[in-house]
Amino acid sequence: MKVRRFEYRIKTKGEGDVRDVTPLVEESVAKAEVREGLVNVFVTGSTAAVSTMEYEPGLIEDLSTALERIAPRGAEYKHHLRWGDDNGHSHIRATIVGPGLTIPVAGGRPLLGTWQQVVLIELDTRPRERSLVVTVMGE
Amino acid sequence: MKVRRFEYRIKTKGEGDVRDVTPLVEESVAKAEVREGLVNVFVTGSTAAVSTMEYEPGLIEDLSTALERIAPRGAEYKHHLRWGDDNGHSHIRATIVGPGLTIPVAGGRPLLGTWQQVVLIELDTRPRERSLVVTVMGE
Amino acid sequence: MKVRRFEYRIKTKGEGDVRDVTPLVEESVAKAEVREGLVNVFVTGSTAAVSTMEYEPGLIEDLSTALERIAPRGAEYKHHLRWGDDNGHSHIRATIVGPGLTIPVAGGRPLLGTWQQVVLIELDTRPRERSLVVTVMGE
Repeated sequence: MKVRRFEYRIKTKGEGDVRDVTPLVEESVAKAEVREGLVNVFVTGSTAAVSTMEYEPGLIEDLSTALERIAPRGAEYKHHLRWGDDNGHSHIRATIVGPGLTIPVAGGRPLLGTWQQVVLIELDTRPRERSLVVTVMGE
Repeated sequence: MKVRRFEYRIKTKGEGDVRDVTPLVEESVAKAEVREGLVNVFVTGSTAAVSTMEYEPGLIEDLSTALERIAPRGAEYKHHLRWGDDNGHSHIRATIVGPGLTIPVAGGRPLLGTWQQVVLIELDTRPRERSLVVTVMGE
Repeated sequence: MKVRRFEYRIKTKGEGDVRDVTPLVEESVAKAEVREGLVNVFVTGSTAAVSTMEYEPGLIEDLSTALERIAPRGAEYKHHLRWGDDNGHSHIRATIVGPGLTIPVAGGRPLLGTWQQVVLIELDTRPRERSLVVTVMGE
């Protein structure tokens, strides 16, 4: 049993930018030389999220529309009163979707569906440089 | 320390079908002979989700009602334009709830509350055969 | 490789009470003497959730507002018909946000952003004593 950690820097374009990070997850599992185990994908920061989805432009837009129902951009946020920020909705969306995900590893690969990609979801209003941490544990 | 992986095929009836998979999680932990550690439950595919809930028919219906607020079945989805699909809302709900969960293992059992069951939530519009992957890691 | 589990009892004030449990997560990782690995944070029970957020009073209020959009307190819940309960919305919110989280451990500490705290989100309508389980795995 071993554990290996990889960190990737990803520059995003701000709100609505969703990145397919599956190749980074696959690369990490391969480099770790783990055949059976788990791989954890985690974004540090409070205005981005990690989940899985079928990675296609239509769904990326549909996801923004749905998150707008949960935490509309134009609503009043107490968070703004505190910092003069404009990204209260980004924070709330990030907390609800969640910052990370753990995926099974089988035969040296993350065990995902054909139409299931691991995505980094940028929720902040401005471009950010994100740190994506991929931790592989197993044998 | 060891890792053991179990895969279960589960035939669902489509949208609104929520299955209590706690017995499968317990069985996996027992078979792995892990006393202390973690168990990860993950569904491959982009239109189903895994979480915990008190497993009773009322809440299953209430969950559908709430997910309808986030991603209504009748709304317009860009995803439909691409593939002629009718399950844009299924995809979005799956991404927001998430495909997996990691639970502590104590004394050879998943450490859940009395009223807390692990559930596979079918979100697709048609019956599906799901692959549920249970990975047990520990000692 | 080793695994260590810690359990904390946390008395909450009911709905709207969000607790920063980052110090407990840090303490657990330190006590486990794990330098590299993963730490899982899990709440037993079906009316509380765990996620990360910037821990400040404004966002705590904003989170309640957003969860009210998903599962309004005043809506009709089938769950209430079954048990005469008043916390159908608490259950639904808990299932959507999720009961747990797995975070990378690096250099003997959970790898979080500066403005990213681990939070226990009480969603039940009444004060509860929660069991928070922190499991540290690694080397």
